[in-house]
Amino acid sequence: MTHFHLCTAARSLLKSYRHREVLKTVQGLRVREFRNMYPCTSIAWHNSMEEILRKTVAPFPSYEMRDKSPPPPESNNLEFMHFYKSIEKEQKLEFLEKLSYDFGVDHRWASDLAAKLLDTQVRDVATILQVEDRLRYSLTPRYRQLLTHISRVQGGVKFLVDLRADLMELASSKITDSPHMRDLNSTLKSLLSEWFSVGLLRLERITWQSPCEILQKISQYEAVHPVRNWTDIKRRVGPYRRCYAFTHASMPGEPLVVLHVALTEDIANNIQGIVREFSTLDTDEDVNKINAAIFYSISSTQAGLQGVELGNYLIKRVVRELQSEFPHMAQFSSLSPIPGFFLWLQGALGQHKKEGRAIELLSEQEWREVEDVTGAAPGAPALEALRRLISTSEWIRSDRLVRALEPALMRLCAWYLYGEKHRGCALNPVANFHLQNGATMWRLNWQADTSPRGIANSCGIMVNYRYFLEETSTNSAAYLQNKVIKASEQVMGLVSQFQKNSKL
Amino acid sequence: MTHFHLCTAARSLLKSYRHREVLKTVQGLRVREFRNMYPCTSIAWHNSMEEILRKTVAPFPSYEMRDKSPPPPESNNLEFMHFYKSIEKEQKLEFLEKLSYDFGVDHRWASDLAAKLLDTQVRDVATILQVEDRLRYSLTPRYRQLLTHISRVQGGVKFLVDLRADLMELASSKITDSPHMRDLNSTLKSLLSEWFSVGLLRLERITWQSPCEILQKISQYEAVHPVRNWTDIKRRVGPYRRCYAFTHASMPGEPLVVLHVALTEDIANNIQGIVREFSTLDTDEDVNKINAAIFYSISSTQAGLQGVELGNYLIKRVVRELQSEFPHMAQFSSLSPIPGFFLWLQGALGQHKKEGRAIELLSEQEWREVEDVTGAAPGAPALEALRRLISTSEWIRSDRLVRALEPALMRLCAWYLYGEKHRGCALNPVANFHLQNGATMWRLNWQADTSPRGIANSCGIMVNYRYFLEETSTNSAAYLQNKVIKASEQVMGLVSQFQKNSKL
Amino acid sequence: MTHFHLCTAARSLLKSYRHREVLKTVQGLRVREFRNMYPCTSIAWHNSMEEILRKTVAPFPSYEMRDKSPPPPESNNLEFMHFYKSIEKEQKLEFLEKLSYDFGVDHRWASDLAAKLLDTQVRDVATILQVEDRLRYSLTPRYRQLLTHISRVQGGVKFLVDLRADLMELASSKITDSPHMRDLNSTLKSLLSEWFSVGLLRLERITWQSPCEILQKISQYEAVHPVRNWTDIKRRVGPYRRCYAFTHASMPGEPLVVLHVALTEDIANNIQGIVREFSTLDTDEDVNKINAAIFYSISSTQAGLQGVELGNYLIKRVVRELQSEFPHMAQFSSLSPIPGFFLWLQGALGQHKKEGRAIELLSEQEWREVEDVTGAAPGAPALEALRRLISTSEWIRSDRLVRALEPALMRLCAWYLYGEKHRGCALNPVANFHLQNGATMWRLNWQADTSPRGIANSCGIMVNYRYFLEETSTNSAAYLQNKVIKASEQVMGLVSQFQKNSKL
Amino acid sequence: MTHFHLCTAARSLLKSYRHREVLKTVQGLRVREFRNMYPCTSIAWHNSMEEILRKTVAPFPSYEMRDKSPPPPESNNLEFMHFYKSIEKEQKLEFLEKLSYDFGVDHRWASDLAAKLLDTQVRDVATILQVEDRLRYSLTPRYRQLLTHISRVQGGVKFLVDLRADLMELASSKITDSPHMRDLNSTLKSLLSEWFSVGLLRLERITWQSPCEILQKISQYEAVHPVRNWTDIKRRVGPYRRCYAFTHASMPGEPLVVLHVALTEDIANNIQGIVREFSTLDTDEDVNKINAAIFYSISSTQAGLQGVELGNYLIKRVVRELQSEFPHMAQFSSLSPIPGFFLWLQGALGQHKKEGRAIELLSEQEWREVEDVTGAAPGAPALEALRRLISTSEWIRSDRLVRALEPALMRLCAWYLYGEKHRGCALNPVANFHLQNGATMWRLNWQADTSPRGIANSCGIMVNYRYFLEETSTNSAAYLQNKVIKASEQVMGLVSQFQKNSKL
Repeated sequence: MTHFHLCTAARSLLKSYRHREVLKTVQGLRVREFRNMYPCTSIAWHNSMEEILRKTVAPFPSYEMRDKSPPPPESNNLEFMHFYKSIEKEQKLEFLEKLSYDFGVDHRWASDLAAKLLDTQVRDVATILQVEDRLRYSLTPRYRQLLTHISRVQGGVKFLVDLRADLMELASSKITDSPHMRDLNSTLKSLLSEWFSVGLLRLERITWQSPCEILQKISQYEAVHPVRNWTDIKRRVGPYRRCYAFTHASMPGEPLVVLHVALTEDIANNIQGIVREFSTLDTDEDVNKINAAIFYSISSTQAGLQGVELGNYLIKRVVRELQSEFPHMAQFSSLSPIPGFFLWLQGALGQHKKEGRAIELLSEQEWREVEDVTGAAPGAPALEALRRLISTSEWIRSDRLVRALEPALMRLCAWYLYGEKHRGCALNPVANFHLQNGATMWRLNWQADTSPRGIANSCGIMVNYRYFLEETSTNSAAYLQNKVIKASEQVMGLVSQFQKNSKL
Repeated sequence: MTHFHLCTAARSLLKSYRHREVLKTVQGLRVREFRNMYPCTSIAWHNSMEEILRKTVAPFPSYEMRDKSPPPPESNNLEFMHFYKSIEKEQKLEFLEKLSYDFGVDHRWASDLAAKLLDTQVRDVATILQVEDRLRYSLTPRYRQLLTHISRVQGGVKFLVDLRADLMELASSKITDSPHMRDLNSTLKSLLSEWFSVGLLRLERITWQSPCEILQKISQYEAVHPVRNWTDIKRRVGPYRRCYAFTHASMPGEPLVVLHVALTEDIANNIQGIVREFSTLDTDEDVNKINAAIFYSISSTQAGLQGVELGNYLIKRVVRELQSEFPHMAQFSSLSPIPGFFLWLQGALGQHKKEGRAIELLSEQEWREVEDVTGAAPGAPALEALRRLISTSEWIRSDRLVRALEPALMRLCAWYLYGEKHRGCALNPVANFHLQNGATMWRLNWQADTSPRGIANSCGIMVNYRYFLEETSTNSAAYLQNKVIKASEQVMGLVSQFQKNSKL
Repeated sequence: MTHFHLCTAARSLLKSYRHREVLKTVQGLRVREFRNMYPCTSIAWHNSMEEILRKTVAPFPSYEMRDKSPPPPESNNLEFMHFYKSIEKEQKLEFLEKLSYDFGVDHRWASDLAAKLLDTQVRDVATILQVEDRLRYSLTPRYRQLLTHISRVQGGVKFLVDLRADLMELASSKITDSPHMRDLNSTLKSLLSEWFSVGLLRLERITWQSPCEILQKISQYEAVHPVRNWTDIKRRVGPYRRCYAFTHASMPGEPLVVLHVALTEDIANNIQGIVREFSTLDTDEDVNKINAAIFYSISSTQAGLQGVELGNYLIKRVVRELQSEFPHMAQFSSLSPIPGFFLWLQGALGQHKKEGRAIELLSEQEWREVEDVTGAAPGAPALEALRRLISTSEWIRSDRLVRALEPALMRLCAWYLYGEKHRGCALNPVANFHLQNGATMWRLNWQADTSPRGIANSCGIMVNYRYFLEETSTNSAAYLQNKVIKASEQVMGLVSQFQKNSKL
Repeated sequence: MTHFHLCTAARSLLKSYRHREVLKTVQGLRVREFRNMYPCTSIAWHNSMEEILRKTVAPFPSYEMRDKSPPPPESNNLEFMHFYKSIEKEQKLEFLEKLSYDFGVDHRWASDLAAKLLDTQVRDVATILQVEDRLRYSLTPRYRQLLTHISRVQGGVKFLVDLRADLMELASSKITDSPHMRDLNSTLKSLLSEWFSVGLLRLERITWQSPCEILQKISQYEAVHPVRNWTDIKRRVGPYRRCYAFTHASMPGEPLVVLHVALTEDIANNIQGIVREFSTLDTDEDVNKINAAIFYSISSTQAGLQGVELGNYLIKRVVRELQSEFPHMAQFSSLSPIPGFFLWLQGALGQHKKEGRAIELLSEQEWREVEDVTGAAPGAPALEALRRLISTSEWIRSDRLVRALEPALMRLCAWYLYGEKHRGCALNPVANFHLQNGATMWRLNWQADTSPRGIANSCGIMVNYRYFLEETSTNSAAYLQNKVIKASEQVMGLVSQFQKNSKL
């Protein structure tokens, strides 16, 4: 592994060098000998890598021949897949970089056609459209064809999903950020978007009669409220519950995105009643007690499909499904965790302590309670005591503190969700997901997840994002285009309390 | 309908005008008021058409917002589909032309980016790749998004397949040949190619236990050797027969391409034994009598999927399927019709008559037989008599003529298949299909289809295109790239006889 | 075949001889050498028959060993099945007779146990029950075991169903009526009743998506209103229609009893609108137009299951199915043919002619109409003319006659259905079936089946047997036990008109 | 509960009284008022019980009406089922006793017909057969009809299976042993035998793709080698394993009997390699490593189907299934536990100690080893030490003892399996099962099940019962009829060693 780290260090150096010096010009780009750039890997390996690529990436047909090239023998694709699966992570990086460099767009060709498009001689529509079409064709990376051919092999689509997961991991680990790799990633993403288009997905309801293989996977994938055992999962697919997944013809038996729904009388304000208490579940469903559908967990299972919209469509399909099963159902809402709130809060407490603005976080009355319970002196000591209580989750054991901190934590959390942004969108990823879908930030719920994990992540608070079906398109557009968050009075009230307090 | 013809006449005039005068420049293209151009249609119709398009074709997001635009409400897509289905053929033409004109590529944007790509200031890789990506994006027609959204609606993919069938029909009827329409067609084709990628297709074996709905469709689609009744179709899916189809998740119950296979002792040299005689079929299959698989019919069912390669893949999948069922099977061959041979022959006879080169078609001996049977004088009269005999299929009733004409018709047919070309490829579409797949033109069979249809289309001759599995890739590449046709000795012998004769 | 007739003649003679002379005593019954009794069949055949029976009918275990006998090798059962299938009809008769004679009840054993039961020494409950159990066991024919073992072989149940069909045919053809054969038949029937118990049947709804094999069979089995072609059957499983069948695990793909239902606004009064006119069927079903379910055809497909109640249960299951699909549906009725009415009517006309009581059939006014139309003299000539008109179905072409004969034919038909009896039950088998099920004889419909077949069989009249669900048990019991027919006012009115007329 | 015990005590007294005094005569048997006989239960309860029975057990039709009685309304059967399910165990006993007493055979009727059969006047075959048929009919308990009707209700068959399980439990708990209850039990068993006839069972292969519900049940039912968790069950249905079950149309989702098979290179001699070690299981199956099929667990799941042969048929079906999957497979064997060996051994040790014949169990050499290891004095102390070691399973921890005891325990075990009998059959129930099926007692395996349970039950020994397919019928017949056990040389060798030793 140290070897690996050395390599990545060397590569980082080379990368910056590369970008400044080596690649002065793109036209006629020639990647240097890999054996110089990656001294840590053997010549034999490079040779075999080059051999495989030469063999399996078919030459790019001319524009005229584009519809007349026979597909390469399937064995080529299988060889590529086999080779890739057999190599180590570090080698994968090199391999993909080489693929993206050597088999991308032919920049000179593209330039020539761009020049042709600008040629003032070309003025009739037909010719312009044709030049555009040629230009479009020339901008297609050569590896795109390879990816398409692989998708046709048995297991090929799954292979590409996993390959993209590798690309995502490499990108997020910052080991590489070459623009060629980004191009490869985006090419692959756009292909996957076509293949995983909603029209090609199958909605499956998962029940206790579903194949064990599926249920085991769903248990493993469930990240929001972990499944503890098979009794647990049995309940999550039993009465007063629904579990749906999208699957795809080319990846049989593999749920792509999973949505857990609880059928309740009112919009649930805590998760305990859904995943830990089952008193009502022994009996058959009483349709008269079902007025609301609570989406309490949604999980994507394929890292390689990140950015390919599935969750949004799944929620909408499920809503339709539930409406047809329960025609009078009118309440649809998530019950969502707030990952990141605790970390943000810790940061805020630290910041305030540093800046001596503790007072802005809690009201005087609230500070007094903290001082009383902890015996800490007002000001910094109380702030420190509070920080410790929260970071150890100990506050939850004191009923008095629980009562005392409720207003403060609720308004801080409301602000975190509503006010904290990243590039204009909600910082909190779960909020961002539901707001993109057009949901309303509807209700914060105190003591909504009292599991150790719930306390540790979000001080036990959970939030309902409610789906008012006739509003979701408008909300979604307003949020995506103008960054407007639709929130309920409760949420706005908490936000304005926070703002008032902060200004003190 | 006369109204329709008037309209199309008017449109033709306008079209030429349009192309010469109106559309002097593409940048800033503004199509004139439709009500001027198409006086035969009402203002109300144009208004509603524009309204629909304005409403359902979402604005094209900027490059930056390309991943952040919420999909339009599904109702938009349904409205588009509903509108299109409700209008007349003539209106469809206008509608699609308007769509392709008004919602295609933004040419100015593309030009600007092309200019940017050529800007000599831009010299670092990352920027170049980014400009290329923006340029690629700008070259995406705006309606592409609409088509993608429609594909996600229930029944959307089928709608688009049918819409493309309309485009193909309009194109082939020469009513329109606008470059915008061609662009729309090719955009749609490329989307369909992704959605109907082989990885997303399901191979189904059709048997007498398959749903009646499927079997009825397969009967209707069978164009090569028409199915006469349900006993007939029952036999074609019974013992010593296999019937396979590709289906697609988004068009359930709809076979896309159908392959009929006969399992025989030797490579079949006539179709009668396959579709009309069934003496051996009453019993169970005797695996020892199965040495060859004869593809005796392959039919695509969706005009809108023309150009989306399915048949080739189906044959290959079926070969794999059969190899796994019959591990020792080693002979795979088509038994194919030769549509067009008769017409070509009629043409050739006419040409030769005009040019007085009748002698080149038949040998002296052969002409003598014709003269004897018909009582016609040598030369033009005999040629005319022969032409009549062939055009009326009457020659088939005279055993003597059948014997006499065999060598001549066989070598003419071999030439037609092997020597007659269209843009370098085999003129005969069936030959072209199998040669593209890498098959060998293996054997011409005399009296192979004695049905009236078989006599009328190809003088009763059929041809086996044989699939030598280890050679198909090589053959396919050689044919597609270098126009080389792989043919057997029998075929080459007939061809050289023809050539010798022609040179006399 | 003449050979066959000779044989049966010989057998008849022998049979009577047998019953009078040979079989003086049952105890110790020894059937004579078959070769003497059936001189027309060879010794070799008898030997092989005896050999097969000796080999395949396992010895009857003693009472003590009854649970400890291993099943015979499966090959025995297969051999029995194979042998039976391979022999001729005539041989089957001999074979089954021999089976039933030689492998039936051991009469001496049964007598001994009967004596024991009467032994006055035996007075404690336990012993009595035990002797009864032994007696019951001794009364089991030995071939019962064989039948049970055959039922366990693949295809065995179907074999036994077909074997019983042979038994039924032999019985009805009066070729044999030996009590042993009757015993064999009733033993087999009681076994089939267990295996085809309703709990083991599966209700299948047949649609256009059902396997072709099933739909073809259903078309063939449809005896009530023959299916003309595949368009016809497609409609009978399409909108506003339902088709249900019972199937059984051991006879996959084989519908046992089929019920066709039309969903209508009112209780249908003719069959034309159901099987011949389909104007309303092109569209989707409008649930608001569905108020009644009309059972317009029910067919049993297995002659061998005669007497095993299936049709009754199928109707009841279908009613439940329909009630769950259409909760508000309240009208359930058959629309039934009246096979036999025409023959009965011909007989009645003949009888009346002979007895000179023509006047009793038609009223004076009605006779006058007949005389007018036919030009026949009153009395015998008019009666003869009427007979001829009816026997040729010609009357239907004269609107005047149609109007004139309606009252007469309706009241005659009502009488035929209601008043004509066989052993106390309705003579008409369809009436008997529905009355047993507890239906009410609800309405006779004039011109209800105007097909040639309908006119010929029942002068175009059809009848609704209506199922008032809350009454069916009562009606069924009243009919079966006390022969009481529940009929509507319309029917009773027609019956009393008939009676009044007859008394004139 | 004490109430219950009082009741059962009272009942025991009453029972003996009943049998001696009350029921002096069966003809005209009138069971006394239940409220007198069962003073511990209320009058209300008895009334409702009588009411239910009167209502739901239909009157027995006369012989003439036997095919003409309409089935009782389904609601009757549902009421019976509902009532029975709602009552307590103690009440069930009373209820079933009353059912079997009051609704059994009409003894007087049976006697009358028995007398008729013996009537010397009756001498023609037909009449004799008819009287026999009537007698047979009269011997049918009236409740048989009720059971048949219940079987037709949804869930009815499962209800009867459970009801029989109650009967079996009552019988085995010796609370009741009335002959009427035995009759009820045997009537029900014979009905279940018909319904669960092999022809009506479906063989299902259970895999990781099977419904979770099924896999959970199979895990729970697995009694032989308990399933510890879901990883465990996943392996038992994974590569190199097969799991099959019989299911029945009327009890969907309910495996009736389950067989676990391991596919191995040689006949397995221990269970550890099958259920606890999985090194080879990660990969795909290598068909070349599969020569033997080891049945390592077979479990019946329905107590109520005891005596209905299923396991035997399942093994035979699975053998056929495996032969078709692995045509060259030639070795089929169980790897079976030996429940009861330890208890038997403890008994033997105790007996020998009492009788001072310890020497007969172990050889001198063996005793010396025991004395050495335990430090116990020879004779009784050593015997006692050995007994303690074995009863605590401690001997397994001493390699020396393990070695020393192997010959002794193996020959004792061989004797236990081969020589110990119950009514002539093998005492050990597993041995009895496989010997009935025709297997050979093939090999005893030392250290074959080293789990605590395995050591405790059978000193770690397991046995292979091998199925030589061509011999099973012969073996089965020889065993069942003549009590002959087919055993291998190894087993016979151990047995004769035991016999030699015992004679010392």
